[in-house]
Formats: sequence, C-alpha cells, structure tokens
Amino acid sequence: ADPAAVTEARAHQDRLTKPRGALGALEDVAVRLAGAAGCSPPPMPEPAALAIFAADHGVHAQGVTPWPQEVTQQMVANFVAGGAVANAFAAQVGASVTVVDVGVAADLPHAPGLVHHKVAYGTADLSAGPAMTPEQTVAALEAGISVARRLVAEGARCLITGDMGIANTTASAALVAAFTGHDPAEVTGRGTGVDDETYARKIEVIRRALDANGLRPGHAAAPLAALGGVGGLEHAAIAGFILGGAAARVPVLLDGVIAGSAALAAAALAPAAVDHCVAGHRSAEPGHAAALEYLGLRPLVDLELRLGEGTGGLLAHPLVCAAVRVMHDVATFDSAGVTEKDA
Amino acid sequence: ADPAAVTEARAHQDRLTKPRGALGALEDVAVRLAGAAGCSPPPMPEPAALAIFAADHGVHAQGVTPWPQEVTQQMVANFVAGGAVANAFAAQVGASVTVVDVGVAADLPHAPGLVHHKVAYGTADLSAGPAMTPEQTVAALEAGISVARRLVAEGARCLITGDMGIANTTASAALVAAFTGHDPAEVTGRGTGVDDETYARKIEVIRRALDANGLRPGHAAAPLAALGGVGGLEHAAIAGFILGGAAARVPVLLDGVIAGSAALAAAALAPAAVDHCVAGHRSAEPGHAAALEYLGLRPLVDLELRLGEGTGGLLAHPLVCAAVRVMHDVATFDSAGVTEKDA
Repeated sequence: ADPAAVTEARAHQDRLTKPRGALGALEDVAVRLAGAAGCSPPPMPEPAALAIFAADHGVHAQGVTPWPQEVTQQMVANFVAGGAVANAFAAQVGASVTVVDVGVAADLPHAPGLVHHKVAYGTADLSAGPAMTPEQTVAALEAGISVARRLVAEGARCLITGDMGIANTTASAALVAAFTGHDPAEVTGRGTGVDDETYARKIEVIRRALDANGLRPGHAAAPLAALGGVGGLEHAAIAGFILGGAAARVPVLLDGVIAGSAALAAAALAPAAVDHCVAGHRSAEPGHAAALEYLGLRPLVDLELRLGEGTGGLLAHPLVCAAVRVMHDVATFDSAGVTEKDA
Repeated sequence: ADPAAVTEARAHQDRLTKPRGALGALEDVAVRLAGAAGCSPPPMPEPAALAIFAADHGVHAQGVTPWPQEVTQQMVANFVAGGAVANAFAAQVGASVTVVDVGVAADLPHAPGLVHHKVAYGTADLSAGPAMTPEQTVAALEAGISVARRLVAEGARCLITGDMGIANTTASAALVAAFTGHDPAEVTGRGTGVDDETYARKIEVIRRALDANGLRPGHAAAPLAALGGVGGLEHAAIAGFILGGAAARVPVLLDGVIAGSAALAAAALAPAAVDHCVAGHRSAEPGHAAALEYLGLRPLVDLELRLGEGTGGLLAHPLVCAAVRVMHDVATFDSAGVTEKDA
C-alpha cells in the first residue's frame, strides 16, 4: 500500500462534514483502497464484475456432502440462464456475471457468459494424495489471472469472486487448516447442510487429506504444494483472480469461505495482494472467520449467509461504493460553512 | 402481518435453487416483508425515499454535546446543497432525499428539497419538564405522517428515516430508558463524540429528565406523554413517518438510535407498525441495540457507524432489495432442472 495515499485519505476523511470516525469500518475501507490504488480519493469501484469459477472435486466420492456432483453443472446452466441467487444479486447491484469452467466434470455447451478454461474434469481425491498436479495448479491460477485481466480490460473497476463446486467447502477447510495452522475440527463447517455423521466424516477426510499431502497444521506449507494438494481448481483460479486484480490495482471483493481460503494461497504467494482485497462478508462457515482473521480482513456483511456463488461479495459492493463515494462527493467543514465541534 | 403470505413466502424460499436457509437473515427479511405487504413475493422496495427530519433541542443548554446548536441548520443547508454523507449514500443507492424542518431553531430559507413543517423553534429543555406540549407532539407526529403519505403518493416503495438535531442522542437515550425500562447509564452513548465529563453529565441530565417528567424506567409510560416529555420534534416526526409508512403498507427502513427510539414510540402507539419496519443497521450507541432488542428487530449492517442522517438505513437498502429480488427472480429446483440434495 502507498503510505502517502493512506495519510492523505485519512486526513481527507477528517475534513469531511461528519464527526471524526462516524462512518466506522467504512472509513477504513476507503483509506485502505486509497492505499491500494496509490491515490486519494481512490477510484470509484464501479462497474463491478463477478466471476464464478466452477469445478468438481474428487473428494465428492468420500461422501462429504448430500448434494450430487451433477449439481455443479446444473447450477452452471442456472447461472448462464440468469436464474440463480448470484444473478439476482448481480442485477441488484449492477454487476456483470461471467461463469468460468475451470474444472467441471462434464463437457459444457457453449453459451453467452460462459468462459471455457477447463484444466481437468474435476480434481483427484484430496484425501488420497494431491488433488491437482503442479501443472494443473498453475494452469488454474493462470486461468484466474487471465479472467481478471480480461474483465479489467473490458472496464471493470472492482472484481468480485464467485464459486460453484459441490464439495468445495471440504477443500476450503483443508486449505484453511494448512495455511493458518488451525485444527481441522476448528475450521470445518456444515457447508450447504450436512448431518452429524457426514460432518464427522468430513473432518476425518480433511485430516487424512493433510496427512496424505504432508501438510501439518501449524507448520508453514509451501503455497503451491498446499494449494495443489488439498485445493480445488476453483480455489486455484480464484487465487489467480485475486493476484490478477491486485496486479491491475483493482479492488477484489471476496465472497465466502472458498474465496477466503483461496486468498490465503494468494497471500502466501504475494503478500501485498491482500492490500487489494476487501472481505465482502463473513459466512456461517467457521473456516471463513479463521481465514479472515489470519488475513487481517474485516467482513462488511455478517448475515449468516452460506450460499457462495459470490452472493456475499455482491451484497457488500454497494457498501464499498458508498465508502469510496464519500471521499469524492462529501463537502468539507470549510467548503460547507459548517462549524466544527469545540476542541 | 398476514400469516398466509408469511407461509407462502417461506415455502417459496424453500423451492428456490439454493440450500434451505442459505441466505440467512435475508430470508427472514423477505418473509417479514411478505407478511407486512400481505402478498408473496412482496413488492420490490424500490424506489426508496429518505426523509431527514431536522430539529433543535432545549437540552443543548445543559452542555450534553461539544457541537454548537447552529450546526443543525448548517447541516440542513449541507443536505439541501447535496454535500452531506447522506446525499452521497442516497446517490449510491438511488434514493431521493427530502429534508423536513420540524423544529430547527432558526427560520430557514426556502429551497428545493426542503419541506417546512416547523412546529416550534426547538424543544424546551427536557431535563426541566416536558420537551414538547401535547399539541406540539401531535403536530410533529402529523408532520411525519404527512411526509410519509406524500412520498408514497409520489411513488416511493420504501421509506428511509433520517434525522438531524444537535443533542438528539440525549433525547433518544431518555426515550429508550422510558420505553424499555433500562437504566439511563445502560443506554446512553457518546453520540458524535463526547469526553468523559460530558458523558457523565449527559447521563445525569437524562436521569433528571425522567424524574422531571414522571417517567420511571421499568414502569410502562403513556406513549404520548413519554414522547412529548423527553423526545425531540424529529423523534415525534419519525414516529409519525413510521406510522404513515405502515398505514400505506410500505417498508420503513430505520436508521440509528434516533429512529430506534422513535420506533419505540410508534410501536407503543400501534404495535403492528413494527411489522413494516426493517432495522437498517446497529449504531455504536448502546441505546440503539437496546431499542432494537426490545422491538425484536435484527439490524442488517453493523459497522460501528454513528452518524445518523439516515446513513445506516441507506446502506441497508440494497440488502433489502436483494432479499426481495430473490423472491422475484430466482429459479426453482423444478424450473431450473437442478437436483435437490439427498434427504
């Protein structure tokens, strides 16, 4: 982050016609984005572009979710047809929607809004060894970088992460354990709704995955080995998307636990990328809170969402815009002739 | 609330292409608004209209705030000129802004967007006796009802409460104590920024105000006597605005502690009005949390804002729209051909 822009943004906030600090966490968002952009006020983060990275997971075979794997491709069709919650939220906040196949376990028909970057027909089972080869990991990262670069070239001034992949909260929890050192039981949640038996199995599967990949919680993992070992293709693509947005100095609005775990990988590869990230929300998944805490990011929306797709990031977009708009539009005490409080 | 619409809205939520309950608190918002509107899905709460009710306070003389009283009228000029944070947020979410003088202690020039409903040149000092006469209380309530009715007639489908009045968190804390039974020390905050000495004086002033008006915390107060005794003209107007919105079956998005304390009065006068209220945010003022808890409302945004003006309500508007839009736009499992999870 640019320290001069941070200082100038903070000073500007204090000249505006409002009590100091009265916008709470939104003042910090505006100041952080000034630092990331290298100027104050930072550019308005509009228009926004949501990219939903879709992929399947070999670990699905371990029975970690009650949802059939075909739902990944069915939901891709739903996104492309405009029928999912992410589409409704994107329409509400004026964001574009791009769906990216980085690893769905089926050939998908061409359709407007669907980008083909398929690296594999799903990952291998992470509980038995590496989910991805090193080449696949890099290819998925590059797919995310390329999508970010294209969306920015097309005019996006804010990138929003989205994901679709049945079983992907299992990979997310494994990544969070590997990168933050938390025990799997602390960072594993019930995803889109699993019963007690499945939940216990999910934790056990994650323990085996860490073992099988030589990842011990509390011992710093080599970023690419951890990402490829227990991550998903959409996790790697989102990590690349974050890196691509950061390289373009555009804010990246993170969705839920899939984005949070991908951000851990991105941060391990390039720590400064975190300066460009804004945590859209905190989901109901415990691993998400652990990831955000590790990254030092404060979530803007906290409403017990647990859907993914980018929905939490989309909801936060108007809040981020509002935070930045204050820096552009609001009068100062001097310019508005408003008296400041007694010292 | 209409129980059939509530049941239909809940059932509809469960047919949509998302795991049940995955939208957390937003599902409850959509279901509540269906009940309030008497139909499912409820109408989209757009466009929104913000009304900022401005007034002054006799209790300012007691030294409860470091801000000069003139700041009320200076900020009214700032709102009318479009230079305040509320204007920036309203522009961001596409809400109109109406400023209503219900009791500023000065004659204000006519200006576009400024509505004159002046009931008095500020209230009397609530720490010495009733802040308002019964006639003034009713006149301010009627002003709020009239503004709500006019905005709905002009096309607003969501009303957002706003306020401006130097010293008005003192009146708010007194109202919260009177209606909820909390001790003044529990529900008094530092407003727009007071030091320890002023804070202690503020609590003492509120204790005297309750005494002077025969309001004992824990003893149910007659609504109009409490509102007129320790409230402000903007509190009474906002209570009327809530009643007017509820009568028109339009959602009323509440801002911070001034709106929360006014909503306590509105709820005491007409309990069903609360069905039409959505708590936009939770401010840093402790009395606000107490008021929302008493009303059974869950705030949507929780970012330590403490500005007022309607800023917290405006920030929540896109979240409320998103919650309702889901009910209109999202495909069902059947219509989208998406497989449901195993039972």
